[in-house]
Amino acid sequence: MNKPIIDVLNGSARKPPPVWLMRQAGRYLPEYRVLREKAGSFLDLVFNPELAAEVTLQPIRRFGFDAAILFSDILVVPQALGQAVTFAVGEGPLLDPIKDRTDFERLTSHVDHTVLAPVYETIRRVKSTLPPTVALLGFCGAPWTVATYMVAGRGTPDQAPARLFAYRDAAAFDVLMDVLVEASASYLVRQFQAGVDAVQVFDTWAGILPPEQFARWCIAPTRRIVTMVRLQVPGAKIIGFPRGAGSLLPRYVAETGVDAAGLDWMIDRTFAHEQVQCSVPVQGNVDPLALLAGGGALDRAVDAAMEAFAGGPFIFNLGHGILPETPIAHVEQMLKRIRGS
Amino acid sequence: MNKPIIDVLNGSARKPPPVWLMRQAGRYLPEYRVLREKAGSFLDLVFNPELAAEVTLQPIRRFGFDAAILFSDILVVPQALGQAVTFAVGEGPLLDPIKDRTDFERLTSHVDHTVLAPVYETIRRVKSTLPPTVALLGFCGAPWTVATYMVAGRGTPDQAPARLFAYRDAAAFDVLMDVLVEASASYLVRQFQAGVDAVQVFDTWAGILPPEQFARWCIAPTRRIVTMVRLQVPGAKIIGFPRGAGSLLPRYVAETGVDAAGLDWMIDRTFAHEQVQCSVPVQGNVDPLALLAGGGALDRAVDAAMEAFAGGPFIFNLGHGILPETPIAHVEQMLKRIRGS
Repeated sequence: MNKPIIDVLNGSARKPPPVWLMRQAGRYLPEYRVLREKAGSFLDLVFNPELAAEVTLQPIRRFGFDAAILFSDILVVPQALGQAVTFAVGEGPLLDPIKDRTDFERLTSHVDHTVLAPVYETIRRVKSTLPPTVALLGFCGAPWTVATYMVAGRGTPDQAPARLFAYRDAAAFDVLMDVLVEASASYLVRQFQAGVDAVQVFDTWAGILPPEQFARWCIAPTRRIVTMVRLQVPGAKIIGFPRGAGSLLPRYVAETGVDAAGLDWMIDRTFAHEQVQCSVPVQGNVDPLALLAGGGALDRAVDAAMEAFAGGPFIFNLGHGILPETPIAHVEQMLKRIRGS
Repeated sequence: MNKPIIDVLNGSARKPPPVWLMRQAGRYLPEYRVLREKAGSFLDLVFNPELAAEVTLQPIRRFGFDAAILFSDILVVPQALGQAVTFAVGEGPLLDPIKDRTDFERLTSHVDHTVLAPVYETIRRVKSTLPPTVALLGFCGAPWTVATYMVAGRGTPDQAPARLFAYRDAAAFDVLMDVLVEASASYLVRQFQAGVDAVQVFDTWAGILPPEQFARWCIAPTRRIVTMVRLQVPGAKIIGFPRGAGSLLPRYVAETGVDAAGLDWMIDRTFAHEQVQCSVPVQGNVDPLALLAGGGALDRAVDAAMEAFAGGPFIFNLGHGILPETPIAHVEQMLKRIRGS
């Protein structure tokens, strides 16, 4: 039986388009909040295959999305490189910041897959129970975005510390990126071996980079990951999501070799249709705040995405993760409008 | 005697290009920090014409910039509309947030120019002592950006509250924008009458808007301001700076009618040269973090901007405001490289 999302990634247009939402397994779901309270810390939940598999499946049961995305976090890679990560309640991630070259010595140069073993086990568990038409997506953070957290030690409004580090010591930053490229590629390969149908590379902080740095820290490492993964997993399907890439998105697509491009909510849809969807399938791009607002604003946002992209290969999604305050009824309203029922 | 910046705004290319820096009157200057301590609060300084004029002139004396920009803040407009603004030390602006329609009733519908009179007096004072080749620039925040602070009551990482407000009650948001368009236009007209040579409209938060909202909340209000100002000040020169506009920048330029476009540090320079500088002069766009980093990274950033834009009408600037931690020596290094001396 075909998985609609894989059909789209192979270049077919489906009507209605398949749909999933970034962060669809998460805090806006009451059944998630119940499990989350039981689990202890956020990472306890991520590294518990039984609970993580259940969380991954919750939005599929409730909404019948066309993809399940592995419940995990982009910062498990630094964790597996020896940089301890914690999630303080309501505060986001906290890491010991990497301030200079010598701080690299705290890290191992190869990812410790025993740390990540529970993630692979989660994938196997989900895979065994997922309906056959539903794709299972794995993911990792792109090296640039992961590095911004490793250098700053946390999320900041503009992730300036990593950009400053890279200006001041590009050679040292290259070493960090090399480590992350290799770690991310081997992490994705193991995800495929455990059973994912496709993966997404999240470069949430790509949009703050000037063009030369975008080429060096976003495009080049992503291209290397794509190449390394495909060497070991021929035909591996990879969705790239360089948030905020704007007019640089066509170049990202052409040079990284990703199979599909995630679109953020800010992009000019005419531009994205003409310059990106002409060469690869696209995924996106409703503003998560339009989903939170609901009503006519949501209908208009859904219609705008459908009109721009549904004539070609298109996976319906948001332009960034669903917000925790989003009402369930708004997700239902959106799905009804997409599916026309 | 000609002012090089006005020559550029009239379409001439100058070699070397004239230069000024956003936030050039500010905390990175030791002489500013001395005055700032004397003045009391930040707004006490803004509304004290003697001190504000001195602060405006400080960077001209030290660096010989080609423009002085009025020392003020975009939030004096809400202040003049009756929404009290304070600046807590190290915290940024604080306002009573506008949560719904009824909160509008706290505001007057017309700006109180007696509140802004000290700003006009600052302009007259600076004008009387500025070297004849140095342009005096006024400014205001664009309605969208000012509204994001009025609705959130402060700066937030993504200014989501205003975007959500506009989705939920676009008609009410239209009213707020109407008030801000009229207030901003009359504020700029008075700045011209007091002696500024040109003005800049800062739309710092334009880049978070989806394309339809960009057209409605960024382009349309700015076009109205441009039209209203030119009706009263024929030939008024207006620089538009919609930060993060990306691929929408050519549309912004064409539809607002601004005389020049400010470029942020993220924009693809080839795109900006081909799609924007072909029709209007451009200004920008070195990454403020490259200036903070200094050394080879700064030289490369300066060279990249010069190579992309210095062949046409171009005002050298940063892609956003200079950071308070920036060493004076790095500004000197940058000026030396631009001016080739």
